[in-house]
Amino acid sequence: MIITPAQPAHAISLRDLETPALLLDLDRLERNCARMRERAAALGVALRPHLKTAKSLDVARVAAGEPVRGATVSTLREAEYFARGGEREILYAAGIVPGKFAHAARIMRETGCDLLCITDSLDVARAAAAFAQRNAITLSFLIEIDSGEHRGGLLPGDPAIVALAKEIDAAEGLRLRGVMTHAGHSYGTDDLAEVRRIAGEERDAVVAAANAIRAAGMPCEIVSVGSSPTALHAEHLDGVTEIRAGIYMFWDLSQLSRHICREEEIAASVLASVIGHNVQGGSIILDAGALALSKDITANRFLPEAGYGFVCDAESGERLGDLAVATVHQEHGTVPVREARWFARLPVGSLVRVLPNHACITCAGYDAFNVLRGNAVVDRWERINGW
Amino acid sequence: MIITPAQPAHAISLRDLETPALLLDLDRLERNCARMRERAAALGVALRPHLKTAKSLDVARVAAGEPVRGATVSTLREAEYFARGGEREILYAAGIVPGKFAHAARIMRETGCDLLCITDSLDVARAAAAFAQRNAITLSFLIEIDSGEHRGGLLPGDPAIVALAKEIDAAEGLRLRGVMTHAGHSYGTDDLAEVRRIAGEERDAVVAAANAIRAAGMPCEIVSVGSSPTALHAEHLDGVTEIRAGIYMFWDLSQLSRHICREEEIAASVLASVIGHNVQGGSIILDAGALALSKDITANRFLPEAGYGFVCDAESGERLGDLAVATVHQEHGTVPVREARWFARLPVGSLVRVLPNHACITCAGYDAFNVLRGNAVVDRWERINGW
Repeated sequence: MIITPAQPAHAISLRDLETPALLLDLDRLERNCARMRERAAALGVALRPHLKTAKSLDVARVAAGEPVRGATVSTLREAEYFARGGEREILYAAGIVPGKFAHAARIMRETGCDLLCITDSLDVARAAAAFAQRNAITLSFLIEIDSGEHRGGLLPGDPAIVALAKEIDAAEGLRLRGVMTHAGHSYGTDDLAEVRRIAGEERDAVVAAANAIRAAGMPCEIVSVGSSPTALHAEHLDGVTEIRAGIYMFWDLSQLSRHICREEEIAASVLASVIGHNVQGGSIILDAGALALSKDITANRFLPEAGYGFVCDAESGERLGDLAVATVHQEHGTVPVREARWFARLPVGSLVRVLPNHACITCAGYDAFNVLRGNAVVDRWERINGW
Repeated sequence: MIITPAQPAHAISLRDLETPALLLDLDRLERNCARMRERAAALGVALRPHLKTAKSLDVARVAAGEPVRGATVSTLREAEYFARGGEREILYAAGIVPGKFAHAARIMRETGCDLLCITDSLDVARAAAAFAQRNAITLSFLIEIDSGEHRGGLLPGDPAIVALAKEIDAAEGLRLRGVMTHAGHSYGTDDLAEVRRIAGEERDAVVAAANAIRAAGMPCEIVSVGSSPTALHAEHLDGVTEIRAGIYMFWDLSQLSRHICREEEIAASVLASVIGHNVQGGSIILDAGALALSKDITANRFLPEAGYGFVCDAESGERLGDLAVATVHQEHGTVPVREARWFARLPVGSLVRVLPNHACITCAGYDAFNVLRGNAVVDRWERINGW
């Protein structure tokens, strides 16, 4: 449910939550989503939000609006959840394999949603054709292009792209919808000029692939790129039809460390309790550890002081000096304190917020977002996990 | 449900599981649990299994038997789950804070389970006494001792131990049950002689604290130590009444890297599909990434080649050369291959098992264990997560 700006009568306070708990600042989420929609509109492309970070229908509804079209997911469980929730076209952005065809078909049959699968493999395309014919369904495919990350996909210029397109286009039961790429290497730098260069590389790779397919006489309706950094910093996206991005909804210290967002835009955080003082050792112990924060330290390449997350005042969300979670055990987080005043400022039992190092991974520890307007908890939004 | 050794009629094969999926080898689990029970019996102490790794009533039942007594947990959600499942005495091994008293009281009232809380704080003890009197209940406490890890707890010899014991012992509504410590620093070495020394330090710290409390005229019934490495390598545990340990049920590459277990004892693994070949880049892509394996690389301090997990044959569980997951993204794991033969051996769509780097964190990504006898899936055991 989306909450209207006025604080409803049933709002509760942070004190009423049992810690650790996942918080989501609705004002920030709304601003972040509006900004990316404006950015997509300015670039003249559709925005297909990647919902792997949020995994929540309520968040998807905040992300919606012009020019948002369809959704992106990273698992079939997410695809099923969002299809049942009403999404009509979902791009499943991990290479599908034959063991997952039956699940994909079930999602499409039961919900009417069109699932766009991706592949870079002739073998998968052939197996998909056989499956589709056997089951009298149509499977839609995008061809995955490698624009420089070198994880999956075919390199632009590789004749295998046109060969794979022909295989899909000619197969009864398969439908060639286009090409896609993900410039994941845009996370590998904190230099925005380099991000801009990678955004150009991402665009050029996928546009070249689309042109090769069209030159061979086949359709290539969708030309899809995706990453929040390249979406924000591309000089232009001529020839691209859509951008996929997800972390822009929440932001985190990893994106902050790369100058992609500002600290006051980070919308997700973890509410934790101080559960101990180690006065001799100079540390404060939180009940947010490896499971509550995750062990992801992607930010630390460019922001080593991020630790497992910056510690903030629970009510205002403002940072508390340079406090950060330096060490985690399963359910314990240790915050070194150089000045004794912090023991008085943060007594045992007091609350803090921790900004996530990498929100995609931190959020996956939780079943729900506690939704905030200011410091009032105005709603609880369920989210899914697993496979 | 516990499966008898004979494979039941409803067993399915690994091919029937959608990947990624968590596997649990029941033969190995049973042997690991039996071995730790024998070890505790030989040391003359009770075994209070730590269930934070398993989070499963079915696994707890395999761990049960003489001299197992009660359970250990790391969250109140685990406490509630195991109390509702029939556990009669549960040690909640993270410092409790006033915001959690009501939940603890509710668990005890609704299930009849006695919850043993821990603290090292006079303020918490006083707040607990006030809460207990207000709510006409009894809260049981162990005092947390720092035996060298320097996370939480009072140092042995600190007069604050006896002062805190007196506060608890004298308070109406509180019951002083004993002392506990956790030698978490036993994970900081791969030298078994050093583990043995730490086990002595852990024992001596908590026995000294117990003796100080008794010398002041108070009871100290429970003297509790806990970590799988120190449980296996302590020379003796005279004066200790119980050991808490958990990872011994499953083992993992972190424990293997420290010579605490053998590879053929590792009971938990992740079933994954090969979803891509990057022939130019020399890598195989799996559908097991940061969420399916976790980003925990605790093993790598002593076993850097562990990456995010060793890759094994799906059916036999045997390692495939030196293949390991070197890089993870949210739903992708990248396995470098130096020899082209691996592409033929592991075609797109084929299955592998990945041994977890740190099983406590890997398992937390899953709702259930797929239970194996050999390579037949004989059951599905639910597990809980979150808080």
